[in-house]
Amino acid sequence: MALDPSRTVAELKELRELTGDENGAQRVAWTDTWETARAWLREKVAGTGAEHEIDAAGNQWFTLRGESDRALVIGGHMDSVPNGGWLDGCLNVLAGVETLRSIAAGGTPPLTVRLVDWADEEGARFGRSLFGSSAASGTMADQDEIRGRTDANGIRWVDALAEHGVDLDRALEARTQLENAVAYLELHIEQGPVLESLDLPLGVVLGTFGVERHQITWRGQAAHSGSTPMAQRRDALAGAAKLALEIRPIAAEVGDGAVCTCGGVVCKPGIVTSVVETAEQLLDQRHLDAAKLARMLQLAKDASERFAAEEDVEVAWERLWQIHPILFDETLVELADAAIREVCGASHRLPSGPLHDAAEVARAGVPTVMLFVQSLRGLSHTKVEDTKEEHIELSVQALDRLAAKTLEQLA
Amino acid sequence: MALDPSRTVAELKELRELTGDENGAQRVAWTDTWETARAWLREKVAGTGAEHEIDAAGNQWFTLRGESDRALVIGGHMDSVPNGGWLDGCLNVLAGVETLRSIAAGGTPPLTVRLVDWADEEGARFGRSLFGSSAASGTMADQDEIRGRTDANGIRWVDALAEHGVDLDRALEARTQLENAVAYLELHIEQGPVLESLDLPLGVVLGTFGVERHQITWRGQAAHSGSTPMAQRRDALAGAAKLALEIRPIAAEVGDGAVCTCGGVVCKPGIVTSVVETAEQLLDQRHLDAAKLARMLQLAKDASERFAAEEDVEVAWERLWQIHPILFDETLVELADAAIREVCGASHRLPSGPLHDAAEVARAGVPTVMLFVQSLRGLSHTKVEDTKEEHIELSVQALDRLAAKTLEQLA
Repeated sequence: MALDPSRTVAELKELRELTGDENGAQRVAWTDTWETARAWLREKVAGTGAEHEIDAAGNQWFTLRGESDRALVIGGHMDSVPNGGWLDGCLNVLAGVETLRSIAAGGTPPLTVRLVDWADEEGARFGRSLFGSSAASGTMADQDEIRGRTDANGIRWVDALAEHGVDLDRALEARTQLENAVAYLELHIEQGPVLESLDLPLGVVLGTFGVERHQITWRGQAAHSGSTPMAQRRDALAGAAKLALEIRPIAAEVGDGAVCTCGGVVCKPGIVTSVVETAEQLLDQRHLDAAKLARMLQLAKDASERFAAEEDVEVAWERLWQIHPILFDETLVELADAAIREVCGASHRLPSGPLHDAAEVARAGVPTVMLFVQSLRGLSHTKVEDTKEEHIELSVQALDRLAAKTLEQLA
Repeated sequence: MALDPSRTVAELKELRELTGDENGAQRVAWTDTWETARAWLREKVAGTGAEHEIDAAGNQWFTLRGESDRALVIGGHMDSVPNGGWLDGCLNVLAGVETLRSIAAGGTPPLTVRLVDWADEEGARFGRSLFGSSAASGTMADQDEIRGRTDANGIRWVDALAEHGVDLDRALEARTQLENAVAYLELHIEQGPVLESLDLPLGVVLGTFGVERHQITWRGQAAHSGSTPMAQRRDALAGAAKLALEIRPIAAEVGDGAVCTCGGVVCKPGIVTSVVETAEQLLDQRHLDAAKLARMLQLAKDASERFAAEEDVEVAWERLWQIHPILFDETLVELADAAIREVCGASHRLPSGPLHDAAEVARAGVPTVMLFVQSLRGLSHTKVEDTKEEHIELSVQALDRLAAKTLEQLA
């Protein structure tokens, strides 16, 4: 079958009808709707002759044997958040299906070509993302914690896994799947506003941001709003407010795409008649360069100490989470750039703010690259997530072109 | 009986034993413990020969007939917040009892002297303060709303009132109580840090602040913390943070004791992975001068419009509550100042941030003044609320001295 990008658009709509409702996509991992989507996917791939397999972590693989066991892997995820969009995760898979069809139509490929539908990228039900890909990459070090997790209804994650044929104790056996992988390609919607603001359909992803995530607690003194003169206040919110504004010059100073976000401040007692005694502030900092990320964190800590002294309040930092930057493969970045330029005339290189399964694969040492296709208004994880159909079709063409270039390069 | 300020300290401790527990005072209005305190108060006053009466709003009056029906009124409240302090409200009443004893010991006074124990100053159980004094002053315009109120257990306020002999439909009949009043005196703990910072035991209150209380809602755009470049954000928290800091120069510019407080900011979605879409900010502004209060509000509104434009977010103001400044009587302020100087050598004039029953009496047109006695660390509405015993004794002396001067002046 010749490549038909319009078929991908039609299949995305078919999947939306099958597994969505008036609130959006409902393909939450480890649910019946997710299994429905995965069974539907098997039917779609059947015509290519690719062999089907589900690994020990629940990842679904389709393998088109080539002249060599060395494998080019194309990936995505069929699972969605509840009330999700029609593209996040499944565009990746269905563009991969179309690419697989086109490669199969060309006879036995020089390398083995595999399509993977990663299990539970979103972590929507149990609050821990990248389940399947972290098992395959061998980075899943938190199995004890996973064992303790339950969903909102108190159902244990291990029991939900077992219902879907996954034994947590054996999940890391999925590592064997990447043993022969020599390249990994993933298409994804951008989930941000950059390509739309540049009026470009597609971009190459340089890697995923390193992240420093902290809770900063400011402690002052509760005092009556009416009876406490301004000069005698120790206002915890003042420290948090200064830092919420200071992250902008800090990001600007570090530059190169640095982002800092204060996602919220919780004030206690939080009533109109009292100066704020405690302000708990969330800070998220991201950069593609590990040294610059570390510098950005240090600048924020230094600023917080300065503000605490100015306001006569205490400040304490607690790390909630961190991850190092993960850089994609330089050769594949060049090939992706060339593929995009051939398909739409212009390309753009950008980092990925969100993590993706591709980051786990890259951590496993497999040369990796991602393509981003423009998201309208940068929205995702909502039913209004959208991408122009002409851009979806261009993205399928670009993935197919990139796969061809990669096979040629590695053959 | 000659004035014995140490007796007031002893009676305060006796009351604490009778109506408090390990968590503090429990004399919440319309409860059995409150009734216990009020019955105990009647026993304490009995020896003075004052006539006892409970009015239509539940206020408890003790009347010492004088040569004239024109009345000097001394007031306080026996009710406390739950887990309250040992002084708030009942110091006022018990210092009044001691003053009544001393006046009674001097024979028939030139004016009638009345002590009032206002019902439900705190509003702790049903969330609306100054019940009894607002009925007596005739400002209780929210009877329909009172009728709809329930406590945390769903008990209707009207039913709780009826249990304690109060018929809401008749509560405003309490207005007759103030018909002959020509002066009203109230002693209270400061509940703020001013007198302690000046190392002064006592001060004269000039009036109660006017208050402007608003909720300010900032609306930006939720956006992913990782995928949204700094320049493309519309961060609602940035507007709130700027205003939380700007209230300080605004208060300084307006001056004369101006206070502005941002008691809290509620961020939505309030998660570390998103720019803040909506920030709901509480603002409380107070001043003793109505024009300056209005100017302070306008400055804050102007600043918010400027910040909204800078941040490309929307801002909307909603008034939660307001009250005009209430100024106390100039003649009584002079007499109170003289009384304090005679008792402790130095005085200080200050506004009251919190409202008090005295504000309601002043609104009814009765010349009014208050004395503040130093609060340790400015704390109240907590069991650690405290005042030095020597300062309590000085406060009883000052109230007695002020009552004598007032009687002399008005006779």
